[in-house]
Amino acid sequence: MSKTYQDDRVNDTKTRDTVVNMMRDRGVELKEIAEITLWLQKKYVEGLTFDICLEHVERVVMKREVQNAILTGLELDILAERGDMDEPLKSMLLKDYGLYGIDEVLALAIVNVYGSIGFTNFGYVDKVKPGIIKTLDEEGKQEGKCHTFLDDIVGAIAAAAASSIAHRYG
Amino acid sequence: MSKTYQDDRVNDTKTRDTVVNMMRDRGVELKEIAEITLWLQKKYVEGLTFDICLEHVERVVMKREVQNAILTGLELDILAERGDMDEPLKSMLLKDYGLYGIDEVLALAIVNVYGSIGFTNFGYVDKVKPGIIKTLDEEGKQEGKCHTFLDDIVGAIAAAAASSIAHRYG
Amino acid sequence: MSKTYQDDRVNDTKTRDTVVNMMRDRGVELKEIAEITLWLQKKYVEGLTFDICLEHVERVVMKREVQNAILTGLELDILAERGDMDEPLKSMLLKDYGLYGIDEVLALAIVNVYGSIGFTNFGYVDKVKPGIIKTLDEEGKQEGKCHTFLDDIVGAIAAAAASSIAHRYG
Amino acid sequence: MSKTYQDDRVNDTKTRDTVVNMMRDRGVELKEIAEITLWLQKKYVEGLTFDICLEHVERVVMKREVQNAILTGLELDILAERGDMDEPLKSMLLKDYGLYGIDEVLALAIVNVYGSIGFTNFGYVDKVKPGIIKTLDEEGKQEGKCHTFLDDIVGAIAAAAASSIAHRYG
Repeated sequence: MSKTYQDDRVNDTKTRDTVVNMMRDRGVELKEIAEITLWLQKKYVEGLTFDICLEHVERVVMKREVQNAILTGLELDILAERGDMDEPLKSMLLKDYGLYGIDEVLALAIVNVYGSIGFTNFGYVDKVKPGIIKTLDEEGKQEGKCHTFLDDIVGAIAAAAASSIAHRYG
Repeated sequence: MSKTYQDDRVNDTKTRDTVVNMMRDRGVELKEIAEITLWLQKKYVEGLTFDICLEHVERVVMKREVQNAILTGLELDILAERGDMDEPLKSMLLKDYGLYGIDEVLALAIVNVYGSIGFTNFGYVDKVKPGIIKTLDEEGKQEGKCHTFLDDIVGAIAAAAASSIAHRYG
Repeated sequence: MSKTYQDDRVNDTKTRDTVVNMMRDRGVELKEIAEITLWLQKKYVEGLTFDICLEHVERVVMKREVQNAILTGLELDILAERGDMDEPLKSMLLKDYGLYGIDEVLALAIVNVYGSIGFTNFGYVDKVKPGIIKTLDEEGKQEGKCHTFLDDIVGAIAAAAASSIAHRYG
Repeated sequence: MSKTYQDDRVNDTKTRDTVVNMMRDRGVELKEIAEITLWLQKKYVEGLTFDICLEHVERVVMKREVQNAILTGLELDILAERGDMDEPLKSMLLKDYGLYGIDEVLALAIVNVYGSIGFTNFGYVDKVKPGIIKTLDEEGKQEGKCHTFLDDIVGAIAAAAASSIAHRYG
């Protein structure tokens, strides 16, 4: 599929493969994100299909800004799990401390790429935790597991793809 | 109540009165915003009362950044209603056009004052539309009425007050 | 030139013409913005020409998020000049009050479309005021003139075009 | 000095000591940040002293949102230096890759705490690199040294303190 996209201004196919693999290793497939996008947008866009949602999720993870947020957030989750991190940050991440908001900050950088109409969808999925986000949230509560950044990143990609669809069919 | 607050760095009691009156003229009392804050936070903070929520809503509307967002957003709603506005902006605001995101941009400026943990609550209330937000949304659909900015501003103040409470009791 | 662009997800050629005319009426041509972009990026991109900068400025004003910010900000400048606005907002805008930050908030929405690397360039031009920004700033100090939003919008478009170039040639 | 501050809604004295020590270990004293704030604001605020600037820098690093951004950004700089990080992120950070914007994203979270008027000052110092920021930038270019986040964080704290002063004396 990456052949149909160009490496240009804001897109990068090589890093795209890296971040897709990194998310897979952490337990998330792009199709699971596309399911959330479909759940978010199906009532607004008549005839919206899963395949269209997946195509827009693919577009989102082609964006360099998005890739950088993923690379950084997942690295922090991984390092917290490994214990290669100083306190108090390690405990904040392992416990998904409620007053730590840098995960939301990175998520917002992802959402912003498709404009401000995505803020609402991001907040909504982050609260309702549909599909894979719920799974990640529960896994993240296990001893030694950390999905502090991943669950927000997944929600942000799903919301950004929903914005992308809204701009196209709106 | 304003006597208990100081005019200082980021607070302004005089403009506070102006924006509170302006919101009242547009159909919103601070206590209706406090109800949303209570609805958002009561499951996270044991013993949280309506009065505590109202106190934090009062704090939020003391902030100059918040006041400026309210003054600007409500002015735009009012001017759209009066027709004192050029096209295509007038129609975008009167119809609350889905791809117009500047209302969310102003809302985010409000939420940001208490940090990034409020993004989620803002998105959630903007989608679920509890209490007065639902009323505003329905009123705004009437011919000649415009609440494009107001409903987002109300949600943002409620979310910011929720963040303020979370920081205090978290 | 607009023929070479498609109306798609995030682009809108019709509104593009509206905002270009609106900026021209307020005293700004796209080529004046392109001059600032060239001034910002020429030391980083070898062989960068004015025409490339203008092409990227054209891309920026095709984005719906950018168009909405321009429509809203310029409307506020115009209404402040006409006096069709309540106090204290009217005086804040006419005097370009230093603690009013909603102009920066709209500018940031423009910059964000090409990612976070544009923040720095926006702040820099807003402070140094090269070319047309200086002219607008001085005009805006005349009695009855208001460029509170316009000067920030011009800086933001120039910075966004610089980001677009950086992503392409970086 | 920390005794004069209360641990309350958005302030945290214990983590304040941690982040101040962490910045010192990385080569930055709060007084060096206060020098930048003085440089930024002295022409706008008559009689502004270094001590006032230092007091406002102290206030900024009391904010939990700011502390979380510092803890996260410096951890990433440190881990990149140690090599405890996967590619391509490690190389991006060690080389301060121009299209990596997550450092600016964290910086913006710091600036936002005092509202949008700080964006301009942040961008300006990030470009002009006064005082300690220049030193950090040059050190960061040495083999094995990484100040990708630190220099933006220092600029953001200086800009936030400048906003805090502007709100107080504006």
